[in-house]
Amino acid sequence: MAESVSEVRAWVNQRRGEGRTIGLVPTMGFLHDGHLSLVKRAKAAGHAVVMSIFVNPLQFGPGEDYDRYPRDIARDRKLAERTGVDLLFTPSVEEMYPRALQVTLRVGDLANRLCGLSRPGHFDGVATVVAKLFHIVEPDEAFFGEKDYQQLRIIQTMVEDLNLPVKVIGCPTVREADGLAMSSRNRYLSPEERRRAAVLSRALFDAARRCREGTTRAAELVQSVTQQLSSAGLEVEYVSAVREEDLGQVDQIDQPCRLLAAVRVGETRLIDNVALEAGKGMGHVSAYVDR
Amino acid sequence: MAESVSEVRAWVNQRRGEGRTIGLVPTMGFLHDGHLSLVKRAKAAGHAVVMSIFVNPLQFGPGEDYDRYPRDIARDRKLAERTGVDLLFTPSVEEMYPRALQVTLRVGDLANRLCGLSRPGHFDGVATVVAKLFHIVEPDEAFFGEKDYQQLRIIQTMVEDLNLPVKVIGCPTVREADGLAMSSRNRYLSPEERRRAAVLSRALFDAARRCREGTTRAAELVQSVTQQLSSAGLEVEYVSAVREEDLGQVDQIDQPCRLLAAVRVGETRLIDNVALEAGKGMGHVSAYVDR
Repeated sequence: MAESVSEVRAWVNQRRGEGRTIGLVPTMGFLHDGHLSLVKRAKAAGHAVVMSIFVNPLQFGPGEDYDRYPRDIARDRKLAERTGVDLLFTPSVEEMYPRALQVTLRVGDLANRLCGLSRPGHFDGVATVVAKLFHIVEPDEAFFGEKDYQQLRIIQTMVEDLNLPVKVIGCPTVREADGLAMSSRNRYLSPEERRRAAVLSRALFDAARRCREGTTRAAELVQSVTQQLSSAGLEVEYVSAVREEDLGQVDQIDQPCRLLAAVRVGETRLIDNVALEAGKGMGHVSAYVDR
Repeated sequence: MAESVSEVRAWVNQRRGEGRTIGLVPTMGFLHDGHLSLVKRAKAAGHAVVMSIFVNPLQFGPGEDYDRYPRDIARDRKLAERTGVDLLFTPSVEEMYPRALQVTLRVGDLANRLCGLSRPGHFDGVATVVAKLFHIVEPDEAFFGEKDYQQLRIIQTMVEDLNLPVKVIGCPTVREADGLAMSSRNRYLSPEERRRAAVLSRALFDAARRCREGTTRAAELVQSVTQQLSSAGLEVEYVSAVREEDLGQVDQIDQPCRLLAAVRVGETRLIDNVALEAGKGMGHVSAYVDR
């Protein structure tokens, strides 16, 4: 386990000297099977695997859950070790931000939609901390879940725009038995809220199925999902069908698209998304992963 | 000579494989002895030296001199070769910006003063292109002139804030015989303007001397420089005494400080700066380099 940037750099240099490649799995901790699936993917690629655990204050807005975000480093450490993480990097806020940053990253239009509308500055904070982690670890590949789809696309775009020498690998969302996307924030849910939360993935999968079966008008899919969510008493923040390329809204599903939604269940904000593939028949939903 | 990112990466990988370290000298071309002094410094450190030549549109504002910025790549190539540059990187605008960037760098307070006041967005553009060059070349050390002092401090701060794995080396300003700091923009000056332009460095050196001799009140030094510049018919944009640390204005020269000035000589904007060292006697002006 390393807590300082210099320890990480020394460790990485040693691995490089041994001819190893480096895989990075950046997390905010409170690990679940989604995080661990990223580690397994990195292991399978043959990397020495660095996992970072850092609840990044820069990506939380005022009134958000930075203070109460769940943390359990002892449990995380055991899970990481058991899954084959080679180095766990758990920096303090002071190690990552010894002073207020003068230079940060700024995300353009890609951040001014979907989750960005209710979380101004969030993706600037994400891009900044991920760039820092990339500079500290210098991984060959970095692994992110598709569950945070807008984040994934923004990080991939950051890598392209800034020529970062790293490959960003998006990995399928891991789900509970009833379809709920795994998230550290699921622990906020009361048993009753937890039951209702399953409607989110169910509505999205239903739309993905209808799309494959021939419903290619985005408005129709969005309306159907919105209705199912509202009927289940979930407060809809957005439901949106967008191009995978630039997250721009589409009218017709005639190219690689994604259907994304954010809801509130009680006080808890949940997000999820599925791939939309028009006319692909009744195939397996690509965003679903059996565990 | 390389024009593409992939050529540079292949070349750098090869040098790394041979056990070489890499030094980067980023420039906008139209090379003068200032640029070449950076190359010599990088050679002396034993690096394989990459020089980039790229007139970066992102750091020019509307109405600035992007279009007429002097370019002479054939001459630059000869000078670079003669000085021992190992790889000249001359990307096109399309190679650096294949599309409008979604993710850029943003500089805080350090950019909201001095040159930043008349050139909004300038240092964001500088930070963004330099980060890209750092990611493309992955140098061990990068060399910048002290002549663009605010730029140098912003790049050093960027490296610290974003944990970039590169060491930024600031190198002394190289000057013409009459003290004028070398700059590609000096070629804009008419013979008469060129003569008057020498007052800029002369006034700054005079203030540095007075400071060493005991004048430690910043306002007094600033006023004296302003007066000399105005008397010579130079239009003063700013004269400012700041801490080297954070470029914050000081009242007293009682720590490492810098005296910076920007003027217009006719249509041409010129900048220069000197170190302020209180009570150091009549020593050699540290910003002056004999060629």
